[in-house]
Amino acid sequence: MEARSFKQIQRAYGFDEVAIAPGPITLNPEFSDTSLTLGEHHFEIPLIASAMDAVVSPGFSGHMSNAGGFGVLNLEGIWTRYQNAEDILQEISTTPLDQITTLFQRLYSEPIKDALIEQRINEIKSTGAVAAVSMTPQRTKHFSKIAVESGVDILVVQATVTTARHTSKSERGLILSDLVKEIDIPIVVGNCATYDVAMELLEEGIHGLLIGIGPGAACTTREVVGVGIPQITATIECAAAREDYYNRTGRYVPIITDGGIRTGGELCKALVAGADGAMLGTPFAQAVEAPGLGYNWGMATPDPALPRGTRINVGTRGSLKEILFGPSLLTDGTMNFIGALKACMGMVGAANIRELQQASLIYAPDIKAEGKSFQAAQKS
Amino acid sequence: MEARSFKQIQRAYGFDEVAIAPGPITLNPEFSDTSLTLGEHHFEIPLIASAMDAVVSPGFSGHMSNAGGFGVLNLEGIWTRYQNAEDILQEISTTPLDQITTLFQRLYSEPIKDALIEQRINEIKSTGAVAAVSMTPQRTKHFSKIAVESGVDILVVQATVTTARHTSKSERGLILSDLVKEIDIPIVVGNCATYDVAMELLEEGIHGLLIGIGPGAACTTREVVGVGIPQITATIECAAAREDYYNRTGRYVPIITDGGIRTGGELCKALVAGADGAMLGTPFAQAVEAPGLGYNWGMATPDPALPRGTRINVGTRGSLKEILFGPSLLTDGTMNFIGALKACMGMVGAANIRELQQASLIYAPDIKAEGKSFQAAQKS
Amino acid sequence: MEARSFKQIQRAYGFDEVAIAPGPITLNPEFSDTSLTLGEHHFEIPLIASAMDAVVSPGFSGHMSNAGGFGVLNLEGIWTRYQNAEDILQEISTTPLDQITTLFQRLYSEPIKDALIEQRINEIKSTGAVAAVSMTPQRTKHFSKIAVESGVDILVVQATVTTARHTSKSERGLILSDLVKEIDIPIVVGNCATYDVAMELLEEGIHGLLIGIGPGAACTTREVVGVGIPQITATIECAAAREDYYNRTGRYVPIITDGGIRTGGELCKALVAGADGAMLGTPFAQAVEAPGLGYNWGMATPDPALPRGTRINVGTRGSLKEILFGPSLLTDGTMNFIGALKACMGMVGAANIRELQQASLIYAPDIKAEGKSFQAAQKS
Amino acid sequence: MEARSFKQIQRAYGFDEVAIAPGPITLNPEFSDTSLTLGEHHFEIPLIASAMDAVVSPGFSGHMSNAGGFGVLNLEGIWTRYQNAEDILQEISTTPLDQITTLFQRLYSEPIKDALIEQRINEIKSTGAVAAVSMTPQRTKHFSKIAVESGVDILVVQATVTTARHTSKSERGLILSDLVKEIDIPIVVGNCATYDVAMELLEEGIHGLLIGIGPGAACTTREVVGVGIPQITATIECAAAREDYYNRTGRYVPIITDGGIRTGGELCKALVAGADGAMLGTPFAQAVEAPGLGYNWGMATPDPALPRGTRINVGTRGSLKEILFGPSLLTDGTMNFIGALKACMGMVGAANIRELQQASLIYAPDIKAEGKSFQAAQKS
Repeated sequence: MEARSFKQIQRAYGFDEVAIAPGPITLNPEFSDTSLTLGEHHFEIPLIASAMDAVVSPGFSGHMSNAGGFGVLNLEGIWTRYQNAEDILQEISTTPLDQITTLFQRLYSEPIKDALIEQRINEIKSTGAVAAVSMTPQRTKHFSKIAVESGVDILVVQATVTTARHTSKSERGLILSDLVKEIDIPIVVGNCATYDVAMELLEEGIHGLLIGIGPGAACTTREVVGVGIPQITATIECAAAREDYYNRTGRYVPIITDGGIRTGGELCKALVAGADGAMLGTPFAQAVEAPGLGYNWGMATPDPALPRGTRINVGTRGSLKEILFGPSLLTDGTMNFIGALKACMGMVGAANIRELQQASLIYAPDIKAEGKSFQAAQKS
Repeated sequence: MEARSFKQIQRAYGFDEVAIAPGPITLNPEFSDTSLTLGEHHFEIPLIASAMDAVVSPGFSGHMSNAGGFGVLNLEGIWTRYQNAEDILQEISTTPLDQITTLFQRLYSEPIKDALIEQRINEIKSTGAVAAVSMTPQRTKHFSKIAVESGVDILVVQATVTTARHTSKSERGLILSDLVKEIDIPIVVGNCATYDVAMELLEEGIHGLLIGIGPGAACTTREVVGVGIPQITATIECAAAREDYYNRTGRYVPIITDGGIRTGGELCKALVAGADGAMLGTPFAQAVEAPGLGYNWGMATPDPALPRGTRINVGTRGSLKEILFGPSLLTDGTMNFIGALKACMGMVGAANIRELQQASLIYAPDIKAEGKSFQAAQKS
Repeated sequence: MEARSFKQIQRAYGFDEVAIAPGPITLNPEFSDTSLTLGEHHFEIPLIASAMDAVVSPGFSGHMSNAGGFGVLNLEGIWTRYQNAEDILQEISTTPLDQITTLFQRLYSEPIKDALIEQRINEIKSTGAVAAVSMTPQRTKHFSKIAVESGVDILVVQATVTTARHTSKSERGLILSDLVKEIDIPIVVGNCATYDVAMELLEEGIHGLLIGIGPGAACTTREVVGVGIPQITATIECAAAREDYYNRTGRYVPIITDGGIRTGGELCKALVAGADGAMLGTPFAQAVEAPGLGYNWGMATPDPALPRGTRINVGTRGSLKEILFGPSLLTDGTMNFIGALKACMGMVGAANIRELQQASLIYAPDIKAEGKSFQAAQKS
Repeated sequence: MEARSFKQIQRAYGFDEVAIAPGPITLNPEFSDTSLTLGEHHFEIPLIASAMDAVVSPGFSGHMSNAGGFGVLNLEGIWTRYQNAEDILQEISTTPLDQITTLFQRLYSEPIKDALIEQRINEIKSTGAVAAVSMTPQRTKHFSKIAVESGVDILVVQATVTTARHTSKSERGLILSDLVKEIDIPIVVGNCATYDVAMELLEEGIHGLLIGIGPGAACTTREVVGVGIPQITATIECAAAREDYYNRTGRYVPIITDGGIRTGGELCKALVAGADGAMLGTPFAQAVEAPGLGYNWGMATPDPALPRGTRINVGTRGSLKEILFGPSLLTDGTMNFIGALKACMGMVGAANIRELQQASLIYAPDIKAEGKSFQAAQKS
């Protein structure tokens, strides 16, 4: 079969398959700088709360800012469709699971109100927080104007799969380079997962990149349409694009791994793979302060013809402060994300996240098996 | 061990191991053309209902044609052995599982009637549908004459493993190139799974190729005799044969991935692997209109000495229209196959199936694990 | 790390990881010749019943010969320690599992009687069967004399791991080349699993080779001491040694895959990997005629200090004839081994086992997953 | 993507993925020498009991010495914080699991007493045992003086991740080469897992190296911070450093695989991977003589902000003598470690551990599957 040319299949890695190798130097964790810079904004912690209705409310944005990160409010969700968003979230949390898809499809067919966009941004600003909001590419022309006029600080343009080149029969699509020129605040764009697309998006002049296609716990895009790239490989590819772009242009654009992170270990792996920060959904939906009341769902869930995800009972684990900084009573990595990050940075001798990105990853599919099945069976 | 020559083992991939990588362009799904051409027949959707007794009845062929695809009636099953086929199917659906192998062995020992072949084809034609029927190579000489005289539109010659070169002690075997000359309608042949066999079959002059050995949910050929090739690799190999044959002769022969597809994601992966269409069993057996009454079984199941498969309770999920086009209330990819296909085509920027075949596949064995075990545990 | 030299780890394959690829020709199964030649003995089927107390009694040897294969009686088990072996086997089958290791350690400390060796061989001969018996290398000098004088036809010298070079403090060890010269009947030796050891054993002049270290269902050697090689790789390596030895000397010595085969599919894979025949334990222990009464255990099980295995409830599936030739009511490959073998030979176009050895293997770890989890969940 | 440079991911192997290949020679196990030399100390068996509170008490150190190995007492655990350590261990064993993290965090905040260090070392010495104690690098300057003055024989300096270069804001960190000069007894240092770090530590002049980061059954470091290397690869890398250092300097420093070993098979694999000895936790916690009363927990478990592990119910399997030398009634490899080691050495023809290190490893992920699922299901 020498002369034949078969379609090639590239290897891609997910969180569970890799581990971080300790380096030649260790460091006292007190030294470690975990900060993230996005445009002119400087954040003490590299964590962003996902633009999901169960994760970020205007109030939750305030809590995230106080903790040193920021949250992104979804402008196409419950909060801009309903004045009484809390009541709607209550209804979602109390509806039986077998009726939830129908409920979602009904609730998300309610129109978005421009006035609510303005109101929600004002609510965020009133907490003193950095106001970040998200919208899909199709609605960006209209919504970005309202948001900027309302004083928003960061704009997130987000779809399941985003490219710089989109073809549509309808009105002329969104040109990101035009948007960058028109608007004077940082623009974060996603989601993408490969070197080529990341590079094309960076060349549009945007200020941040979201990495990840379909990896979240609340999303079944990969089952339904077969599309997806595991997060370690996606992050490695896009980080390579960021470096090449930086070396060529001198402009450093942070990349944010978005989706699939449930533990401190996974956060650390994403940063070692090359991310500058991470967007978390489920871990924040587990905070006492989260609007989802112990539940979470993906933004592709309400799709009327092709729902991709459902409501998940994520439970409530503790306050946002405990989830971020501990102390933890849980030993599975789902609390004290920043404590875990600092401990990891100490073990690999990284004084900041740029140094953490230089640590080594190993492929170790069996790493969870060692002793763990025993542990699972014997815990008592 | 340098000089020693050990038997080589080639890597082969199945559906669960791969995912589709998004491409550099996205497309509005409304652009996408999902059609399949087979001989002079043009179908709006690239889906074919399997020649299984629980899937295709004459009436179901009508429904498939109305929906834009077609169904294949098995000429060696219940429908041509029994006038009262519905009663037999009812009996199968109500027999306890521990008696089902015995029942199958008895039911399928009833002789096939020529008159019923003619009658069933007439029943299909009376619905206005494209009439497609299947038979095994051993019986093709006799049955193909009756079928063609009855006005059949497409002939499917199908066995577990089919090659252009078959040796038998009995009467001279079927010569496909002779059959092609004698018969003036498209002939689809299968099943095969490797480049070499696909190329030899294409050179016989046939008009379509079925890909897949033993992958269906209702088949245990791989356990019983050890033979089988996972569908992604089988499709990639046979698609390479189709391309090489096309480049050499100018004749384009569609290849159809047959078996093992349960979700929209798997359908999309088969087409990205190179298929022009897909033959589905279990998903159609789950339609309200299917003759199996919520059950399915493979055609190797009734083998009297070496049964390979059993009756599976597949349940009923919705109407054929809902299974094909939605709307879906299920989020696991088992409904709205065409909606999923169009969404996938949009994400990889493919305007038609030839373009979809150019998308990239990645090997990501862990892709299902990311977040999914969590989801499974927490759903409520 | 370029200049560093780390210990290399070679990839090895087991049954579940591979599948057989269909070849360019298919064949009517009625053509297939499944015979095995061992010394001057010619067997219609390539199957040997393992030298395990639950598998081969003198009577079972008779049944195996009638069916076209042969069984090997273990000269160091229950049958040569106890006159009333059936009573002992009855006791084993009725003892609670938590007392079974103690029972085994007591039962197998009873001395072996020379008179019982002679008696058991006579019992086998009286059935008209080919009499084959096994012993460990340490006891071969003494036992082989008694066995040959009693008229045995085939001698099997078997230990967990066998090499041509063994060092011992006690009396001078067994020299296989001497044994071959002294004894005029075929000598089968095992077990080994690598090219080098297989070649050294072949050069001693022996007549058959058993392949497999620790793979059987009734053996935990791999857990306890870490030693083992999966059967596909073991068979591939030793088959390469057989070929090289045959090409150099013109003497063809059959190799027998021993252990781990539970289904027709696994038998077929072992032969495609290069075996000339297979030794089966558990499948024959499931025969009505087997002495184990529905149970099986490995010969390392009774080790007083380091037991490696336990009693397994294998159940009773049917008569030996049904297990070998069907008809089968089971669809999982555990009955009708010869029917499965012939079907496989037809699918890959092999007229005999030498041709079957030329078929291709693929590495397809996911092959069981395709559709099977669905099937498992939905069977009803 | 030719010119692009993506982050590389190195393959790493764990216990369950590999097996030992038998070699060309076999040996009577009575020949085998299993001894380990550490500094001037010579031990008959290459096993060390872990510095865990549930494993080593002063009394258990005595039992280990009698058996031919040695135990390491943790100077920062229960035994040096509490005079009535047995009462505390009793309390740990009877506290419900949902309160255990809180209890650990409270118990381990009690200060360590210098007087108890002296007392515990005297207690060990009074049994006639080799006295070995462990401490973290931060406390080594202070504790090592007390220990040496109290007559300790072996010093173990141990942290989750240890390097020769550690940076801290506080007082000048521990310089291992200084410690080696100041103290006249063997110093064992760990834990490390890579060639580079092992080489740097060896060059400090230390006398033994502990290998393994986060692999134990009682540790969740890998989940919480993502850091870890499977033990086979860690041992192979560090053994390569030992060899290169030995060839360059003539000084042979034994390396000890620490953590994750639960069976005789895993012990054998660690030594074949290149270790000179192994440190075991859980297997010794299962001894009647162990202070943990049937429980075990890791030393990262009590971390107040970031607990990494919990209390595991390991049960009690037998006396230390039975666990080390049998006889065994268990067939899963968890008893008779030395019997298993000698059996393995016989199968690969190794007369001592240096020869055992030369045996071959294979990568066989499927090796446990062969026959074992069957066994698990059928045991009765």
